[in-house]
Amino acid sequence: MEFKIAVLAGDGIGPEVVLQAKKALQAIASVYEHDFIFEEALIGATAIERTGNPLPQQTLNLCLNTDAVLLGAIGDAKYNDNFDVKVRPEQGLLKLRKELGLFTNIRPIKPYRPLLNASPLKREIIQDTNFIIYRELTGGVYFGEKTTNEAGTYASDLCEYSENEIARIAHLAFQAAQKRKNKVTVVDKANVLETSRLWRKVVKEVGLSYPSVALDFLFVDNAAMQLIINPKKFDIILSENLFGDILSDEASVITGSIGLLASASLGDKKALFEPIHGTYSRAKGKNKANPIASVLSAAMMLEFFGLQTEADKVYEAVEKSIEYQVVTSDLKPDSNFGTNEVGDFISNYI
Amino acid sequence: MEFKIAVLAGDGIGPEVVLQAKKALQAIASVYEHDFIFEEALIGATAIERTGNPLPQQTLNLCLNTDAVLLGAIGDAKYNDNFDVKVRPEQGLLKLRKELGLFTNIRPIKPYRPLLNASPLKREIIQDTNFIIYRELTGGVYFGEKTTNEAGTYASDLCEYSENEIARIAHLAFQAAQKRKNKVTVVDKANVLETSRLWRKVVKEVGLSYPSVALDFLFVDNAAMQLIINPKKFDIILSENLFGDILSDEASVITGSIGLLASASLGDKKALFEPIHGTYSRAKGKNKANPIASVLSAAMMLEFFGLQTEADKVYEAVEKSIEYQVVTSDLKPDSNFGTNEVGDFISNYI
Ligand SMILES: CC(C)[C@H](C(=O)O)[C@@H](O)C(=O)O
Ligand SMILES: CC(C)[C@H](C(=O)O)[C@@H](O)C(=O)O
Repeated sequence: MEFKIAVLAGDGIGPEVVLQAKKALQAIASVYEHDFIFEEALIGATAIERTGNPLPQQTLNLCLNTDAVLLGAIGDAKYNDNFDVKVRPEQGLLKLRKELGLFTNIRPIKPYRPLLNASPLKREIIQDTNFIIYRELTGGVYFGEKTTNEAGTYASDLCEYSENEIARIAHLAFQAAQKRKNKVTVVDKANVLETSRLWRKVVKEVGLSYPSVALDFLFVDNAAMQLIINPKKFDIILSENLFGDILSDEASVITGSIGLLASASLGDKKALFEPIHGTYSRAKGKNKANPIASVLSAAMMLEFFGLQTEADKVYEAVEKSIEYQVVTSDLKPDSNFGTNEVGDFISNYI
Repeated sequence: MEFKIAVLAGDGIGPEVVLQAKKALQAIASVYEHDFIFEEALIGATAIERTGNPLPQQTLNLCLNTDAVLLGAIGDAKYNDNFDVKVRPEQGLLKLRKELGLFTNIRPIKPYRPLLNASPLKREIIQDTNFIIYRELTGGVYFGEKTTNEAGTYASDLCEYSENEIARIAHLAFQAAQKRKNKVTVVDKANVLETSRLWRKVVKEVGLSYPSVALDFLFVDNAAMQLIINPKKFDIILSENLFGDILSDEASVITGSIGLLASASLGDKKALFEPIHGTYSRAKGKNKANPIASVLSAAMMLEFFGLQTEADKVYEAVEKSIEYQVVTSDLKPDSNFGTNEVGDFISNYI
């Protein structure tokens, strides 16, 4: 089959890790006789430097006309240290998510057996953990109105949600739970936030259509604790944009490295795949970054294409690289392998 | 010396744990010849039941006319499951914080040596951890305008900050760092939130007056991860209200139990002391709840009164209870000791 894939490598280590994901996809293409057509485009800080725009129109057009988007990472520290800059790299990513209507971000959390000791958490706490975070991605405080006053002495951010925004992702979360352990846990701050109370109400209503699925609610402060104390008890965690962002980075400690975590962002029509890690600028160009999160994002893309066997092959290759300890130094401090070597191992295995 | 203390036991396990704190304070009073005058008042769900108001005027008046407030816990699950209820227990606590001007919430995180194995984190990760969270407590999304539409299909919460709100707590954080490891880490989401960008700007400006203190910034998603991977590296964590709430509950895993964590909430004139744990309703009346967080809150109150020797005595008593394993079942699953027995041990030791 033929698929057209937009490749937005972005900033920092983005280009290096995305390259390994492409190598894996090319290996899959040649073994299983598919045709993956990659088209590169600019986004983020790199796009600002070249075009003045973090999401050039050309990039958006490309994404709208491809089967899926493979993204690296976005951001540059210099924009966070400079408060007068009005054009910021992250706007490119946020606008892309919004324009493509990618309202559901899916982040699976499952430790690899050979890496159980790589986590700061005790083995008995993390083993058999297996949950997925469903993070709402196009609403909440990320997209509400932002203001500052002229004097620069006041700022505000508005968090908004509508019933429809909550219901559509809730359906996906319940459907996913039905195929797994039949449990959805909503994370919110309903004792303080009006938006959280709307979340509770809407998710409860949606839940009536999925009677086999148990539904419970946790305050985000408590959830941040439970995720570490007893991660096994979760199946599907459903949360709004900001809480989902925080919890999924936090949950990375269960796997031993954020460099292992992939995500799929889905809308009604479009889909984007990206690691949950950031640009890790210090490692840029050093052949140090872990490419597995990017490779796994490519595997999630294959699943989205309906190519389950091919996706499983990629998962298997990643498992082998971990089993044989062909991993970067985040997982094995004395490792001799870099980004490229891990990527080579994976594509050769395929 | 004589001190007048408002005791707001609140809901759930609040009354049980506050009782132990009072016992410790009474022991201190008799050994060191002080006079602590306790006056009880209603707050939270209990106050709603009896008066219809989560913070009766009488309670507020009492707090305004005492030297300090000792609080138990506030909240009741039934209010979170009922979206039509407009009067909520937490409003009592939030209003009290606001009315007393308690803009700084201080949460020390330091594991006890004999409990290093009680944490889900590995010993080598947590040992020698010692940081304090400075959480802004009277601003942010907790206090911004909240709206819903008539149809119940839309909700919003406004997060606001002003320069002054940020600067006053930043000064306290830098001053605390000067007496410790000279490091302040601000946690925010400056790549997305306008309020976070204001935080960065203001804290940087304030930092100019404290040249000996190193200042750095972390995004909240990253911070939620770093807190678990490498908690040793923090000294003072400074954050806005909601992020501080999430991070401090999360940080409780470092000590092995949220039942060990106390907090002080300070304003220009007033002060309130409370555990960071919640109402733990399931344990209510069962003599099961860990009273140590409440006892330690009382110790922080003694420090606030300038009674350092007395506070140190309470800290010592708590250390002994842990050393001799006179602790509740959250710390030792097969423990025979309950809330009362731990409280008795501590007050007898004093
Ligand atoms: C870069 C940033 C805007 C982004 C987010 O907060 O969504 C990132 O942290 C993520 O999780 O994809
Ligand atoms: C009860 C709740 C409103 C409160 C908060 O979020 O501030 C609690 O979690 C706390 O941390 O004191």
